[in-house]
Amino acid sequence: MNSSIIRYILGHILKIEGIMLLFPCLIAVIYREQAGFCYLGVSFLCLVLGFLMTLKKPESFVFYLKEGCVATSLSWIVLSLFGCLPFYITGEIASFTDALFETVSGFTTTGSSILNDVEALSHTALFWRSFTHWIGGMGVLVFMLAIIPMSGGSHINLMRAESTGASVGKLVPKVRYTARILYVIYIGMSIVQFVLLLLGKMPVFDAITTTFGTAGTGGFGIKGDSIAGYSMYIQWVTTIFMLLFGVSFNTYYFILYRNFKKAFSSEEVKYYLLIMAAATVFIFFNILDTTAGIADALTQSSFQVVSIMTSTGFATVDFEQWSQACKTVLVTLMFIGACAGSTGGGIKVSRFVLMARTVVKELNSYIHPKSVKKIKVDKKPVEHEVVRSVNVYFITFFLVFTISLIIVSFDNYDFTTNFTAVTTTINNIGPGLNKVGPAQNFSFFSPVAKCVLMFDMIAGRLELFPLLILFHPAVWKDLLTQQRTGSKKK
Amino acid sequence: MNSSIIRYILGHILKIEGIMLLFPCLIAVIYREQAGFCYLGVSFLCLVLGFLMTLKKPESFVFYLKEGCVATSLSWIVLSLFGCLPFYITGEIASFTDALFETVSGFTTTGSSILNDVEALSHTALFWRSFTHWIGGMGVLVFMLAIIPMSGGSHINLMRAESTGASVGKLVPKVRYTARILYVIYIGMSIVQFVLLLLGKMPVFDAITTTFGTAGTGGFGIKGDSIAGYSMYIQWVTTIFMLLFGVSFNTYYFILYRNFKKAFSSEEVKYYLLIMAAATVFIFFNILDTTAGIADALTQSSFQVVSIMTSTGFATVDFEQWSQACKTVLVTLMFIGACAGSTGGGIKVSRFVLMARTVVKELNSYIHPKSVKKIKVDKKPVEHEVVRSVNVYFITFFLVFTISLIIVSFDNYDFTTNFTAVTTTINNIGPGLNKVGPAQNFSFFSPVAKCVLMFDMIAGRLELFPLLILFHPAVWKDLLTQQRTGSKKK
Repeated sequence: MNSSIIRYILGHILKIEGIMLLFPCLIAVIYREQAGFCYLGVSFLCLVLGFLMTLKKPESFVFYLKEGCVATSLSWIVLSLFGCLPFYITGEIASFTDALFETVSGFTTTGSSILNDVEALSHTALFWRSFTHWIGGMGVLVFMLAIIPMSGGSHINLMRAESTGASVGKLVPKVRYTARILYVIYIGMSIVQFVLLLLGKMPVFDAITTTFGTAGTGGFGIKGDSIAGYSMYIQWVTTIFMLLFGVSFNTYYFILYRNFKKAFSSEEVKYYLLIMAAATVFIFFNILDTTAGIADALTQSSFQVVSIMTSTGFATVDFEQWSQACKTVLVTLMFIGACAGSTGGGIKVSRFVLMARTVVKELNSYIHPKSVKKIKVDKKPVEHEVVRSVNVYFITFFLVFTISLIIVSFDNYDFTTNFTAVTTTINNIGPGLNKVGPAQNFSFFSPVAKCVLMFDMIAGRLELFPLLILFHPAVWKDLLTQQRTGSKKK
Repeated sequence: MNSSIIRYILGHILKIEGIMLLFPCLIAVIYREQAGFCYLGVSFLCLVLGFLMTLKKPESFVFYLKEGCVATSLSWIVLSLFGCLPFYITGEIASFTDALFETVSGFTTTGSSILNDVEALSHTALFWRSFTHWIGGMGVLVFMLAIIPMSGGSHINLMRAESTGASVGKLVPKVRYTARILYVIYIGMSIVQFVLLLLGKMPVFDAITTTFGTAGTGGFGIKGDSIAGYSMYIQWVTTIFMLLFGVSFNTYYFILYRNFKKAFSSEEVKYYLLIMAAATVFIFFNILDTTAGIADALTQSSFQVVSIMTSTGFATVDFEQWSQACKTVLVTLMFIGACAGSTGGGIKVSRFVLMARTVVKELNSYIHPKSVKKIKVDKKPVEHEVVRSVNVYFITFFLVFTISLIIVSFDNYDFTTNFTAVTTTINNIGPGLNKVGPAQNFSFFSPVAKCVLMFDMIAGRLELFPLLILFHPAVWKDLLTQQRTGSKKK
């Protein structure tokens, strides 16, 4: 294991976090909030630590998938540990576990909160909270790859570990340019949403934080009622941008380079929109007689469906009050999730398309046992290896899910609460049902349950294996042996 | 499609059912219950219909997996449709849907009931209800294969469609002898349990029905409190026999032929016992301070764990009152299920062993990307095709599960009730949680929800594909074309 490169990457991550932490300081200056000093202090700490860790260049820049995974999951843990310090030091979140929970929920773009009264927070804290969504959405390692020159190849492994979906390809031959293109699209779309929200007369601060929450498909709101208090125009702008950020960024890349044929031929996007439309229609007719009219029912149903399926988790209504059928459909959407290669969470539409075709193929094999047709997606045959890895992903997902559910159930809350708490965290959504419904929060869980849910958030964001690999004995043996050898060398 | 052989098989199934229905008539004579006439009438109907349908031999005895699946699932549907008639005609179950639900639950060895007061039933009805468990446990087609000489090969396909587990092999080269050996073991073990129950001073009628419920891993009780009212000795005999009937019958075959090495080397049985032991210990310590003492806690925890994991569903205690952690463990056990090739339901331990190894292999591939080790079970490498089919089974299972859950949720009961109702039916267990807990029943569901749950019971019992194949358009097209060609020929 090349542990020196992992140290080097973590150092860079800390430096980036240090710089990111300067933005809330700026907000503190504008709103004249003393909390800013804490943010400045933590920023300084990150920069100094980061500087020290990157002082010595790694012996070798070569690293494989293993190092990529370890570096990625450690980066996310370090990011959260330092990111939660301002919340804790300012005392705005009294318990360290809670501060960490809120930060992990932010970076992983989950949006599940432990705050009873979000409006009591300072502007500085609200900004940092939403900003973590934006940073986590596209990924901090992708950001690092975009700005820091790293010689040597195989950095695709970092990107692969952090990006979502079954197979991550480079858009252009160089990883660095791919990362840059992704961030250019991300920033561009964020700016467009921000401007459109301003046009709807949304206050600037609200527009910034809402854009962060939408772009990262995060879902932290700055109001107690999330997005419900804003105008219908603002709700629709948010709906449309949630939907757009749930689409694979490859699509935007192709549009940017005017390859419209490729941009609009994705089967995943087609099914993503189809499922959304079907769920919206279903819920629309279900809630029609309890809402103020057709426009209201359509706004509510589409907002909630898009918010849940893209794993954002904003709310305009307490869907806990809806019928059980609507709620079950929403829980199903939580598992399906957004498109691969987007900022959204969940198991991803592409994986479900592939799995549905596997089932159909299996049924066909009972009718025509000798047929050897390959599964196709986007008119191209899918490699057996991809099908296999999707199957294994699905199995691993439910394994992690079940173990989490059992541990969380020790708190002795009801099954629905536990089940949807795990569902909403592992899929990076935000709200669940019952005690973790959209009008509730996660503060009542025990520290152990909160740790499990944090684990699920990171596992969900990094798509399981990069985090699980940390628990592989070989990784620890490797790291320990190396350290010992390292000491001996000295 | 060779539809004449399907007609022929269905005819035989009806004849067998006609004969089976004579047993409750005998009970009616003993207890001098008039209900017996209804059973006699339905028996006569089955025999006449069966006779007519087997009058003309099929043009060809050749049939493939497709026909095997169609014949099997149609057999189970026909069996249930005729089997429910006595309940309905005698008026002991007022609604036809409910009578059908009870019968499907019986044959599929689920044991979920719609009866509010089981003790109000006549002895005849109670006997038939429990007898369906015993018939369904080993499978009626396996029984047919054991007694009716069918020339031509490929009858293994019938057995394959009805038996449980990833891969069904013949014990001996001839399907007929395999079927006979299975039934000999089944009957032998049932007799031993019956005698042991009698030795515990259980009334004869109770001992018979309890044996039926245990052997088929069904779970219909004849008392309102299931097994709770019997002595500790009887509860332990039941526990041990539930456990034994959840073990693959291959093990008993090997013991019978004194191949002890093979009998005791099964990894599936090892993990089956390990999981049971772990769950029992867990629940034992959880309920210890609410029970009368160590002996009581051990009896209750082991009985409930074994009853749920083997998919029997007998109860000695209302586990709805247990802590959430215990209940979550029980729900997890419902999904795991018993061993392949036993009378038990669930996804089966062997499938989970294989899936767990797939996940470990995937994690290892991150550490050693070039390793090409095959997954091994029982020290033998597992064919890629088996791994694939287990994966597909798991995916299909959750697809059927989710669709069922959504339809059932239209009744607007709570999530826990709906979730565990589907869980307990698709895994052929019996009780669930909340409104379908061990002290409750399924009568409150709407007819649509009941139909979905019946579908799940049969789908679970036949391990999905044989039933799903009925919905494949090619099967219908095939059957219709053939009928038209048939008419033209005339």
